[in-house]
Amino acid sequence: MNFKITILGSSSASPTTNRFQTAHAINIHERFFLIDCGEGAQIQMMRNNINFTGINHIFITHLHGDHIFGLYGLLSTLSLYNRTHELHIYGFRMLEYVLNDFLKYFGSEFKYEIVFHAVNVRQNKVIYEDKNITVETVPLKHRVPCCGYLFKEKVPKLNIRKEMIERYKLSLAEITRIKEGCDLICENGSIIPNEKLAYSPYTPRSYAFCSDTGYSKKIADIVKNADLLYHEATFAHESLKTAKQTGHSTAMQAAEIAKQANVKKLIIGHFSSRYKDMNPLLNEARSIFPETYLANENDVFEIKLERFKK
Amino acid sequence: MNFKITILGSSSASPTTNRFQTAHAINIHERFFLIDCGEGAQIQMMRNNINFTGINHIFITHLHGDHIFGLYGLLSTLSLYNRTHELHIYGFRMLEYVLNDFLKYFGSEFKYEIVFHAVNVRQNKVIYEDKNITVETVPLKHRVPCCGYLFKEKVPKLNIRKEMIERYKLSLAEITRIKEGCDLICENGSIIPNEKLAYSPYTPRSYAFCSDTGYSKKIADIVKNADLLYHEATFAHESLKTAKQTGHSTAMQAAEIAKQANVKKLIIGHFSSRYKDMNPLLNEARSIFPETYLANENDVFEIKLERFKK
Repeated sequence: MNFKITILGSSSASPTTNRFQTAHAINIHERFFLIDCGEGAQIQMMRNNINFTGINHIFITHLHGDHIFGLYGLLSTLSLYNRTHELHIYGFRMLEYVLNDFLKYFGSEFKYEIVFHAVNVRQNKVIYEDKNITVETVPLKHRVPCCGYLFKEKVPKLNIRKEMIERYKLSLAEITRIKEGCDLICENGSIIPNEKLAYSPYTPRSYAFCSDTGYSKKIADIVKNADLLYHEATFAHESLKTAKQTGHSTAMQAAEIAKQANVKKLIIGHFSSRYKDMNPLLNEARSIFPETYLANENDVFEIKLERFKK
Repeated sequence: MNFKITILGSSSASPTTNRFQTAHAINIHERFFLIDCGEGAQIQMMRNNINFTGINHIFITHLHGDHIFGLYGLLSTLSLYNRTHELHIYGFRMLEYVLNDFLKYFGSEFKYEIVFHAVNVRQNKVIYEDKNITVETVPLKHRVPCCGYLFKEKVPKLNIRKEMIERYKLSLAEITRIKEGCDLICENGSIIPNEKLAYSPYTPRSYAFCSDTGYSKKIADIVKNADLLYHEATFAHESLKTAKQTGHSTAMQAAEIAKQANVKKLIIGHFSSRYKDMNPLLNEARSIFPETYLANENDVFEIKLERFKK
């Protein structure tokens, strides 16, 4: 029951000698997802032993090159690997035109279909769902249409307390209903509340990815109580003016959002290539939100499963 | 008076954990050129301290993604670095459409012009010239229109033998003519041959880049006597059939071309990702052409200047 995020790239518009551009690989229950796909993302996945042929869903935040120029190579490599099953790509509607132009020149040998899902970047809405998770858009505040993505594990089915089966001589039908959250109504009319009969096996986990964005309090409302928040911190707070002008955030602002949202942990990234040492940005954020960590290439952030006791 | 080739990527269609896709940076007399631009080429140039803002001419062999998908990021980074002067790109005519589509979506903030030069990939012709070098196309034999490039240093101007100035009381006009290769006609009608009066300061150097291509003897004629030949060797000779089917060469075939062309040194590269150890390919090539070397990321091949003695 994994919930792991691998940082493939942590730089902003320009890469550096040791930082690739934005891309995060997510493993939830051994299903792999990709958010953004900066140049070199496929090499970074290879280096991190992420079997990217298993990725069926790619979420793109916006149409700046540092978030998508790795798509061309990745899509081509998937074709070389003889992929035949659909690949779903989510993003702002203009991305479809970009992909179509790409396929026009480079897709003639593709044996798989790219299914494009245009998302409304101004809306907080579930855009993907499977048996384990939902993915919601998180409207962001950038120079071009842009949204983040919030990955939420679904509330797991209840586990029955085994000793209760014996005590109340529960039938299969009753067990099914209790697992769905119902109370038990006994023959004598007394009601046994659900929580005495069943328990939730674990707390659903969540990961929010918010880049690129200027400071926006609305983000905090949407990512409220997330286990892990990635929020861009392109600049230190002394460059607040530049951050505002370019539609980016400072490390302090990222920490403010994390604090307001009451998340458990914050990752900052999308660092401007002007910085050689990210520790001042880390310290700045930690002064507001101590549970802040730097995004570094190949770092893995695992959200541990918190199992409930019976 | 540098003449250096830096290997930025040595893999073929798919990158690997430690091999990027094709790109070679060339430094001739401190002018930088780029041949092909596989994904990650800009990062590789940063790692090799190659100031790619100084590159004004990029030569693209053909329109397969592993040779051009790094262009998007590189062109964007040049824009971020506030480039204002023209960038010249040479390649098969369809590349212009690809670039135009790219600029349509991602070029709105570019302050520099991309000047595209369509090359006839079926012709061996000088397509670029400056005061130091010429660049010729080398028709290759691939699945799509494709040509290599031959970089040739120009024949340097002759140096005058200083003692001859005194001996023959040479005038400035005579010195100029002698430097242009003329003999000296003395007042008494005797002729002093040019080689007694002047000497060539160094041997012009040359580098030929031939990828992607199947085996083609015509290549050997064009790259005859080159100091350095890069010839693709995607496969070992045991996979000759696959090489033929895919329009590629084996290590043995690359060595055959080097031998026929009488080049001084051969680099093989564009290795299939199926190979983890390239030494069998190297040994295979060396059995035919001993002066063969493997292309490895960040390797620098320098063609030393051979100065003539007076």
